[in-house]
Amino acid sequence: MTEEHYPIIIAGSGIAGLSAAVYTSRGGNDTLVIRGDEPGGQLTLTTEVANYPGFPEVVGGQELVQKIEDQAKKFDTDFETGIVDSVNKKDVFEIELTNGDVYTCDSLIAASGASARTLGVPGEDELIGYGVSTCATCDGAFFRGEDMIIVGGGDAAFEEAVFLTKFADTVYIVHRREGLRAKEYLQEQVQEKIEKDEIEMVKNTEVTRINGTREDGVEDVELVTHPEGYPTDRMEDEDTEEWRMDVGAVFMAIGHTPNTGYLEGTDVELDDTGYIDINGGVGAFETQTDVEGIFAAGDVFDHHYQQAATAAGSGVKAAMDANDYLEQRES
Amino acid sequence: MTEEHYPIIIAGSGIAGLSAAVYTSRGGNDTLVIRGDEPGGQLTLTTEVANYPGFPEVVGGQELVQKIEDQAKKFDTDFETGIVDSVNKKDVFEIELTNGDVYTCDSLIAASGASARTLGVPGEDELIGYGVSTCATCDGAFFRGEDMIIVGGGDAAFEEAVFLTKFADTVYIVHRREGLRAKEYLQEQVQEKIEKDEIEMVKNTEVTRINGTREDGVEDVELVTHPEGYPTDRMEDEDTEEWRMDVGAVFMAIGHTPNTGYLEGTDVELDDTGYIDINGGVGAFETQTDVEGIFAAGDVFDHHYQQAATAAGSGVKAAMDANDYLEQRES
Repeated sequence: MTEEHYPIIIAGSGIAGLSAAVYTSRGGNDTLVIRGDEPGGQLTLTTEVANYPGFPEVVGGQELVQKIEDQAKKFDTDFETGIVDSVNKKDVFEIELTNGDVYTCDSLIAASGASARTLGVPGEDELIGYGVSTCATCDGAFFRGEDMIIVGGGDAAFEEAVFLTKFADTVYIVHRREGLRAKEYLQEQVQEKIEKDEIEMVKNTEVTRINGTREDGVEDVELVTHPEGYPTDRMEDEDTEEWRMDVGAVFMAIGHTPNTGYLEGTDVELDDTGYIDINGGVGAFETQTDVEGIFAAGDVFDHHYQQAATAAGSGVKAAMDANDYLEQRES
Repeated sequence: MTEEHYPIIIAGSGIAGLSAAVYTSRGGNDTLVIRGDEPGGQLTLTTEVANYPGFPEVVGGQELVQKIEDQAKKFDTDFETGIVDSVNKKDVFEIELTNGDVYTCDSLIAASGASARTLGVPGEDELIGYGVSTCATCDGAFFRGEDMIIVGGGDAAFEEAVFLTKFADTVYIVHRREGLRAKEYLQEQVQEKIEKDEIEMVKNTEVTRINGTREDGVEDVELVTHPEGYPTDRMEDEDTEEWRMDVGAVFMAIGHTPNTGYLEGTDVELDDTGYIDINGGVGAFETQTDVEGIFAAGDVFDHHYQQAATAAGSGVKAAMDANDYLEQRES
């Protein structure tokens, strides 16, 4: 159990946290970034970033993260690896990690991002990384020539389905209801692929089990279908049909859950889905949470834009807010 | 008088406007960027940018702007030079330039930034660029060894005063009242320079005239001082003292005015100082103004953070909002 104090601790090492670190460290506040179990955050799952302003030639996701980390280190940001377990407010904030280590700080920037949601069905945990994945972009190419399932009905599912046709024999979009949230133009792209027999829509259907082994990967999945959708809610219904499909990979694109559990013991307000409520608005202290001295940056509060550039911008705002907070406290 | 239609027009070619263009063009909406009389915006006045996330080695301000412009062009953004005079809402938005050209668009992103405020005293207009400047960072080095005035009492004035000591014989901070808005740590930095005779504070004083020629630059300035401050409001007061000072350069750091005059005929709400009111908050359509289809990005609404990264982030948001707006209108 160590006990080290920093003016500012940043929980999270994605674009938001690292951008914040550039500004807090450069602003003269000793800063510790705590890297969790997805160091670099979600951008590291993206092969090529074409739309981060400043890189007319595409930049690798991992490469961009590394550049911002180098920049933060140039201004002497410290880094530790660990999972924040809880935050306690005393004179200072006590940040306790799951390994028992405790750090204290005057200001905390929550930049712990969001993680891809999973199905919670048997077989999933064992096979994640062995044919089950939350990142089509990262893992699609490993299953060349196989049939693949992508679960979801939103933009991400449709975008990734189109992407997966590059590798798959057939891509099956498995969606639990009839209606689709995916944008019109993405639906059109998918329609074109359906007409070419590259994609098949499997509506009103849910995956209930994934079978396979780590050695041989995914062998098949068990599914249920009901003509009115949400079949797992109607397992006793006579119209509910259980069936199996042979596939080589299962991708999930069913949204994200913000990593904010460690704030539950604090007075930081979270919404129903776990996203942090911040001041918002326009002007100073936009990124302030309900606890003075705790600020939020990136996907922990942003459930809409979620771009590298917006994460960077919000990290910079949180850093400026934290710097201002410390300065106002001193004077 | 041309009449060309674009789904999206962006007024302004600074970081915010260019970042927006990357996203609107890449999103499949033909986009025209209208470059005003400060192409590239305020960042072009900055020699080196050390804190834009992604550039661990400093990047030139002009260079960063150019990179984002190249990126927008890669996605086929069009560019025109001109000053937007007015915006009229018909079926589409009519964007009239001061040269009489008219463009129409379905959605407008106001990213026209803010311009440095000037004093409005005789001599200023003639000598701007010849010893009178709103950008100490850009022009300070041209007046090596001379006495310099910087006008203002806020963060920018104090930061730039310290910066100017690298070049100046003595830097005089001329401030119209006693009280200072500059942050404590900047006041401390200035205090250290005062103790070394590198900076001198001239409070309760205003510049009333700048004398000189374009050939020889600034020769001297005329000033007034009143012990209770705001001397130009008390010219008849017996305690008001008029005097002269020989200096080689005059820098102004007295704030910015947003370039939003062209929106005055619309229902876009501006605050007292001309900044655009946007939805703000957290979630979709943060950048929406009071007129549906007109969005704002960068310093036209942001009077607080004003960083390259926050401008880029807000440009991306405005672009995503505009793309969504057009898509929702179609469906």
